[in-house]
Amino acid sequence: MSGEREIVRIQVDLVCDKNCEACEKFFDCRDPYKYQVYERRRMDIVRERMSKVRHKVMVIAGKGGTGKSTLTVNLSAGMAMKGYKVGILDQDFDGPCIPKMFGLSGGLYLGDTGIIPRVYEPLGIKIVSTGMVIDADEPLTWYHELRRGATEEFLAHVDWQELDYLFIDLPPGTSSDNVNILQHLPDLSGAILVTVPSLVSQGVARRAGVLALKADVEILGVVENMSGFACPHCGEVSYILREGGGRKLAEELEAPFLGAVPLDPRMSECCDEGVPFIYKYPDSPVSKLLLGMCEEINKALEAKGR
Amino acid sequence: MSGEREIVRIQVDLVCDKNCEACEKFFDCRDPYKYQVYERRRMDIVRERMSKVRHKVMVIAGKGGTGKSTLTVNLSAGMAMKGYKVGILDQDFDGPCIPKMFGLSGGLYLGDTGIIPRVYEPLGIKIVSTGMVIDADEPLTWYHELRRGATEEFLAHVDWQELDYLFIDLPPGTSSDNVNILQHLPDLSGAILVTVPSLVSQGVARRAGVLALKADVEILGVVENMSGFACPHCGEVSYILREGGGRKLAEELEAPFLGAVPLDPRMSECCDEGVPFIYKYPDSPVSKLLLGMCEEINKALEAKGR
Repeated sequence: MSGEREIVRIQVDLVCDKNCEACEKFFDCRDPYKYQVYERRRMDIVRERMSKVRHKVMVIAGKGGTGKSTLTVNLSAGMAMKGYKVGILDQDFDGPCIPKMFGLSGGLYLGDTGIIPRVYEPLGIKIVSTGMVIDADEPLTWYHELRRGATEEFLAHVDWQELDYLFIDLPPGTSSDNVNILQHLPDLSGAILVTVPSLVSQGVARRAGVLALKADVEILGVVENMSGFACPHCGEVSYILREGGGRKLAEELEAPFLGAVPLDPRMSECCDEGVPFIYKYPDSPVSKLLLGMCEEINKALEAKGR
Repeated sequence: MSGEREIVRIQVDLVCDKNCEACEKFFDCRDPYKYQVYERRRMDIVRERMSKVRHKVMVIAGKGGTGKSTLTVNLSAGMAMKGYKVGILDQDFDGPCIPKMFGLSGGLYLGDTGIIPRVYEPLGIKIVSTGMVIDADEPLTWYHELRRGATEEFLAHVDWQELDYLFIDLPPGTSSDNVNILQHLPDLSGAILVTVPSLVSQGVARRAGVLALKADVEILGVVENMSGFACPHCGEVSYILREGGGRKLAEELEAPFLGAVPLDPRMSECCDEGVPFIYKYPDSPVSKLLLGMCEEINKALEAKGR
């Protein structure tokens, strides 16, 4: 019995073409090398898919509710309005907001070349999110390994095709999902770090920024979100969540400061309606500011040839 | 050699008093039962510590940045102002905000009876947070098992002593940290579910609510936070993040609606200063609303005798 097993192992070794995924002996093979090969093969597929994406930009904050998703939606739409081919990977598996913010409902489908992203038609933005595969009332309780598998799946088996920009919207925190992207997405172009002005938010955002820097991912810029609110009745500006925190954080991390985005009730309305604010109100001051950020991100990445 | 091992196993079996933590053969013992016993022993310690805490209330939202921590701080302070003995477990390991919101810096110390919580002196609130043990610039990258260990450590080895209320401030998401509390905190009294008014936030909050209900934890109430902003200049109220979402969510989940807390710039100021808003401005309308919520939570729990 033990001799038979030995023979199988030798046979596998002899005919092994390292193409484990396609191997008919996959489940018989006990060679520990198989798993490494399988892992490497999967990373090869990720690398191949991602080689067609020019700029991969993660949107991080550490803290929740700073407007990462809203900013991802609007920067993506801004880039698309400038003529770039854009995709979004919604890496917030537990609380996916991106599909709703584009008014997309329904699932993801498998084509001949992999999972086909959903498209926000008016701007041709390709989107993949767990919000498209999980029931609206179903809480996800995935731990680290499952989350890592999902990240790899979205990078390896989605047919993104050629893209100028892939924005990755990260969930709050600095653990599993952040680490998985930092480890498994090759040639990440950089990170956009979002904070609200308060000191408390900066403290958490700094941790997320430090993690990106530890992984040798450049911070392309810091955005201060929810900064100031102009009363639509009298025009007086109130700094509800304080002010100045974004610029301070950018200085501390020696990263460019991309600007302070004021609060605008129409922003939240647009998210609920499923239309990017920048697309619906292209002439508003906030949209002009956001388009300016797109320009700066673009210039910074082009200058680096990344 | 194999005979010797067998003898050790038998000896362990013979003298085993199931007190694995104190056992001198802990690392020699290969009995799989050891791990179960160890686990059970740890849960016994948790149960013993937690038996001295009358009400254990988790504050959840699914989504980040809805004001879970701010609400935890102010409900805790409100309860303490009513004369209750209150503790807070900051279960947001990656982005702990609670210490800063109470103006507490510095570490946690080990006493004869376990880890000694830090105390917010003016109100005697006992607080434990990873923010007290991790450097401000150090991002945590803990995966599921480590997070579970930390939760158990904070429940089992912190000398909370007698408390009327232990509030647990949960991070965004519905996975590791939420599940760990739901699984490892015995006799959880209920959950406070926080949402901002927008549809997008409700969608995520609903998932967190459904998870609590699946674990047989009652939703004591839904709070709509950041609901409306009265311009300090002209008094006109703007609904920056929309309105009505909290009540709608409460109806959907058949839970009480505890009220809508308006935006107030002084709230964010207080968080950054390290003083609970409700304690600094006890006569403001927002504080009265929050004190009313404390009353309702208290009544609901007393009525149930939990």
